[in-house]
Amino acid sequence: MVLLTASATRFSDAVYRRRLSAAAKEAADRGVDALLISPSPDYAYLLGYNAPDLERLTCLLLPARGVPTLVLPRLEEPLARHHLGQLAEDLRFVPWEETDDPFRTVQALLEADTRRVGIQDQMWARFVLRLRAALDPIELVEAGPTLGALRRVKSPEEVDRLRKAASAADAAMAAITSEQLSGRTEREVSGRILQLLLTAGHAVAQFAIVGSGPNSASPHHEAGDRVITLGDAVVLDIGGARDGYCSDTTRTVFVGEPPQDFRSMYDVLQDAQAAACAAVAPGVVARDVDRAARRIIADAGYGELFIHRTGHGIGIETHEEPYIVDGNEEPLQSGDAFSVEPGIYLAGRFGARIEDIVVCTDDGAEILNRSSRDLVIAS
Amino acid sequence: MVLLTASATRFSDAVYRRRLSAAAKEAADRGVDALLISPSPDYAYLLGYNAPDLERLTCLLLPARGVPTLVLPRLEEPLARHHLGQLAEDLRFVPWEETDDPFRTVQALLEADTRRVGIQDQMWARFVLRLRAALDPIELVEAGPTLGALRRVKSPEEVDRLRKAASAADAAMAAITSEQLSGRTEREVSGRILQLLLTAGHAVAQFAIVGSGPNSASPHHEAGDRVITLGDAVVLDIGGARDGYCSDTTRTVFVGEPPQDFRSMYDVLQDAQAAACAAVAPGVVARDVDRAARRIIADAGYGELFIHRTGHGIGIETHEEPYIVDGNEEPLQSGDAFSVEPGIYLAGRFGARIEDIVVCTDDGAEILNRSSRDLVIAS
Repeated sequence: MVLLTASATRFSDAVYRRRLSAAAKEAADRGVDALLISPSPDYAYLLGYNAPDLERLTCLLLPARGVPTLVLPRLEEPLARHHLGQLAEDLRFVPWEETDDPFRTVQALLEADTRRVGIQDQMWARFVLRLRAALDPIELVEAGPTLGALRRVKSPEEVDRLRKAASAADAAMAAITSEQLSGRTEREVSGRILQLLLTAGHAVAQFAIVGSGPNSASPHHEAGDRVITLGDAVVLDIGGARDGYCSDTTRTVFVGEPPQDFRSMYDVLQDAQAAACAAVAPGVVARDVDRAARRIIADAGYGELFIHRTGHGIGIETHEEPYIVDGNEEPLQSGDAFSVEPGIYLAGRFGARIEDIVVCTDDGAEILNRSSRDLVIAS
Repeated sequence: MVLLTASATRFSDAVYRRRLSAAAKEAADRGVDALLISPSPDYAYLLGYNAPDLERLTCLLLPARGVPTLVLPRLEEPLARHHLGQLAEDLRFVPWEETDDPFRTVQALLEADTRRVGIQDQMWARFVLRLRAALDPIELVEAGPTLGALRRVKSPEEVDRLRKAASAADAAMAAITSEQLSGRTEREVSGRILQLLLTAGHAVAQFAIVGSGPNSASPHHEAGDRVITLGDAVVLDIGGARDGYCSDTTRTVFVGEPPQDFRSMYDVLQDAQAAACAAVAPGVVARDVDRAARRIIADAGYGELFIHRTGHGIGIETHEEPYIVDGNEEPLQSGDAFSVEPGIYLAGRFGARIEDIVVCTDDGAEILNRSSRDLVIAS
């Protein structure tokens, strides 16, 4: 048997009651008759705990009108009740036995006039395909927009957790950039960062990208055996989770004195990142934050070298709504939290990226990461 | 940005070439024209590395006949080529840009006469639903049976990795059961086991269920704040991954002298577990291994207290084919690897489970875990 959960302090039961009824209402407003939420960040968001994400179907059936119902393997029921505490009284439990067909169980639980059911974004394909067969002719649609609309707007308590996660990541970043990097492999430095993230208070250290020299030009480079050396740009992109909320920050350092062309490129990047942050306000469309960074980079002649979007939402997942990308016409809302992380990558030579987490407030962006964005000269 | 991979030593490129062509042939034999494999254990099985499992579509399109094609976000291409090495030459790369529609890209890559496409079991629902729209009227089916048929039969090199993982788990189990448990919380003991799994050579410590006293009667209990005390049964279910292959073993200890009713129950359980192992042979149907354990437990009057299946396959995932469960009429094959883990749970009082990983060979079961199954009296 296997069980994987990341523990976090629950908010009060009232928070989850509010989220469950807000999700039901949001579904109704979107013409969705019920949501099927498998173990996932959405499940954790609605119930305050996460269930094992395994080959046996576990699923919260949240009707637009009616009692939220938990369909789960019988052997998971004690653990679910343990985690849910008082909140369990608001739910109906429908445990299934090892030889039952849980997809028929779900079908039988849906109201006869159900026409559209929203499926949790990360539900496994095997479940989706079996539900499609069992629920035919009900239309299956993505539950993502319904849940995303709720999850993107962070409450003050959630922003507080994001702030603390960002602060912990800043501490880890400050520690690693003050150490000597040259002579160590990317992998060693990555492992050290993971330790530093934990030391700084993360419950989980999730990633530590260390891209040195030419590897700094590969945005998703994985730390490898390359030894960091004098004359390297080093992109450090690090993050984890603290009390259920994620951190994600990037700084680029240069080992020794950078050549003028790197410094020029970095200055443009820093201006672009600041401009994107300054563009953040309620009502501004997400795409325009991307454009604010992209215009400065393009005007300086590096347009072709900025090969990814400007940012992604962050919360209980490292990547969630809203995405700060060309084509996203969604207006920002007060409470949106997302990364602002333009990068410029010159293949074979060097790259740089600067990333902060920002929260959209009525007064513009609150930038949660506080470490300096000036180019750090490392040893 | 975020990246999560578990590193393992790759087998030779020839292994992955063989797997890719075997999967294409298996698909053809099952009337499936192409497989769409998103980042997952299947992806790692076929390519020898895993890609980030994120909101951007990454997908191996493996046609029953033709060139395997990797559809991936452009910014992932350098990392993919880095990991694939020489194997990249066997693949066609189709990178997509941030504002492209990758689902249309997949549709355009499929042959005009494609009728059925197999979808990787754990592909996210949002991708499944978008593919369904983009590929209409092509039928989407589960790729699980195709991949499962290949993955369940372990090569000697794979069995060797499973053997080493089991041996490492045995070492961790031996260490924890020789320590004093009474006076420590379940959570402390669980954390200690995770350390011991790493010390014993696991790259990842995945889980350490510690269910003490009445909690031992909850099969998927999560270690909590309960202090272990004299008179407790303690179920220890632990595992991790070593070189890409998983371990999973359970032992039940008793703190102090067990009451006669616990000992009687344990003896029945031990007999049942041994009987299930003894039933393993090529050609025996999976259900009959479950029955071998269940019959002994039922005959002793505990039938209602054995509330889960007898086992699950194991390999690059902790849970995979074949499942040892009532209703599974699949005959076992030489090379199948799975757990044999009956349990008896008396709610409110105590429970016990014994779990070994076994490999089906032409000579019957090779039991990979070597630690004693006799009841251990702990302090």
